[in-house]
Amino acid sequence: MSEENVCIVGLGLMGGSMALALRARGLPVTGVDRDPGTVATARDAGAIVAGSTDLSAGLEQATIVILATPVRIIMELLPRLAEARPDGCIVLDLGSTKQAVCEEMGRLPTAFSAVGGHPMCGRERAGFGAASASLYQDCTFVLTRTARSTEDGLARCAALVKQVGGKPLELPAERHDAIVAVTSHLPYMVAASLMRLAATTATGEAAVWPVSASGLRDTTRLAGTEPSIMLDILLTNRTAVLTALRRFGRVLDEVTTLLESEDEDGLSRWLDGAASAHARYRAEKRED
Amino acid sequence: MSEENVCIVGLGLMGGSMALALRARGLPVTGVDRDPGTVATARDAGAIVAGSTDLSAGLEQATIVILATPVRIIMELLPRLAEARPDGCIVLDLGSTKQAVCEEMGRLPTAFSAVGGHPMCGRERAGFGAASASLYQDCTFVLTRTARSTEDGLARCAALVKQVGGKPLELPAERHDAIVAVTSHLPYMVAASLMRLAATTATGEAAVWPVSASGLRDTTRLAGTEPSIMLDILLTNRTAVLTALRRFGRVLDEVTTLLESEDEDGLSRWLDGAASAHARYRAEKRED
Repeated sequence: MSEENVCIVGLGLMGGSMALALRARGLPVTGVDRDPGTVATARDAGAIVAGSTDLSAGLEQATIVILATPVRIIMELLPRLAEARPDGCIVLDLGSTKQAVCEEMGRLPTAFSAVGGHPMCGRERAGFGAASASLYQDCTFVLTRTARSTEDGLARCAALVKQVGGKPLELPAERHDAIVAVTSHLPYMVAASLMRLAATTATGEAAVWPVSASGLRDTTRLAGTEPSIMLDILLTNRTAVLTALRRFGRVLDEVTTLLESEDEDGLSRWLDGAASAHARYRAEKRED
Repeated sequence: MSEENVCIVGLGLMGGSMALALRARGLPVTGVDRDPGTVATARDAGAIVAGSTDLSAGLEQATIVILATPVRIIMELLPRLAEARPDGCIVLDLGSTKQAVCEEMGRLPTAFSAVGGHPMCGRERAGFGAASASLYQDCTFVLTRTARSTEDGLARCAALVKQVGGKPLELPAERHDAIVAVTSHLPYMVAASLMRLAATTATGEAAVWPVSASGLRDTTRLAGTEPSIMLDILLTNRTAVLTALRRFGRVLDEVTTLLESEDEDGLSRWLDGAASAHARYRAEKRED
């Protein structure tokens, strides 16, 4: 692989971590962020060799542009790439949902080779201050083919992912979105609903927080996710999230009915099923 | 406080940890377990100075009996105490739900002083092998007054809790059960439902596990809880759990409707509410 000249647009947790990881491997990374303070901080931290608040100026030299903003900003940036780089380049994004982004990528001029990306890592803390060169280490990194993907573009994006320690996994955008609706967006909805319910309960019962333990803490951890990022995710993956919510409601209704009717055998089998599903899942993840 | 002679019935995670913690402070702890192998293991580990599989033999010398079995076994053991110890003693239990146990405690002969207990700590791993002398360190330990509680019994149970590093918190059984329904049993139900749904999804979609990340892991951690323990908990706290499930359903319906109708402002406010509830909760727990 010839050396890439990477420009990262959006120097928050995901973009900042990508910049740090690529710089640690000696690549000449540049950065674009709407906040001049973030550009300066990233330059001072050595995450980028040069930076700008201006998209066109930032993209001038890039062989690969990585869009690392929230999903709906990515959607706004994509139509501006043609003017900023009339000669085209490789485009990769790091957005949490893929169908809407990949459709928009398909509308780029043919000078571009555009690939959807979603690294399966993250933290509740957002911003460049939370970025780390090791964020992508050993993390599954989904790559999705678009109408504007070339084999060369896909191969170079996969190579870049490997350079930062990630494990590329090619998936159609629709399959990606249906999976994360169940494994990520539904868990967030459930965590946030639990948190809101516990907080409401705590307003009338002073012992709620002293009595709460690690179970509530872990089950509600995702409720601390930045709301503006979740808003983008939910609105751009609405259909799949609603499907996941309906399926989840049916599972919860099932166990509620068993408890209501005091069906001890049925309830026992249901609980065993959950425990063995959890054991299989843990075994799968240990093998990763 | 005069030195107690503690007998622990049930040498699993909770009882075994209590034995180890009390022995570490030099108390003459004895143990009873239905499994002779567990009794031998606990003795070899120095958690008890003597042990038995026979309740009457085990209780002979005890000033305090701690019932550390699943809730429905505690319910079976309580009516047997009168015969095993006609002269009475102090009784404390470590069961996860309190109303049913405390009502049964109220039926003990007046020679007994019985206090309900629930330490707000635990692990998914069960059994003496998972026990640790530090399990109760800094943990809120709920104590509930029963019709058979004396001030002396309550004070001596609270002193014992402090000896193992716990923080006694006196609460009526009904309030305790309503709180844990929201902070512990509902989170379990939700975690188990998520796990069952993800596992079902994974049977038809090979990429579910590779794409799943720390969000799913933490949100479903409680699904690994021992099913027989959860069965006892759910059946002895059925009304409060069903109420919590209905309230949770309404919160989830609320956000589902906002997403269905693409009410961006409403959804944004709902997500902000969840994030600020989470921030307040984390601040409360840090102050503990």
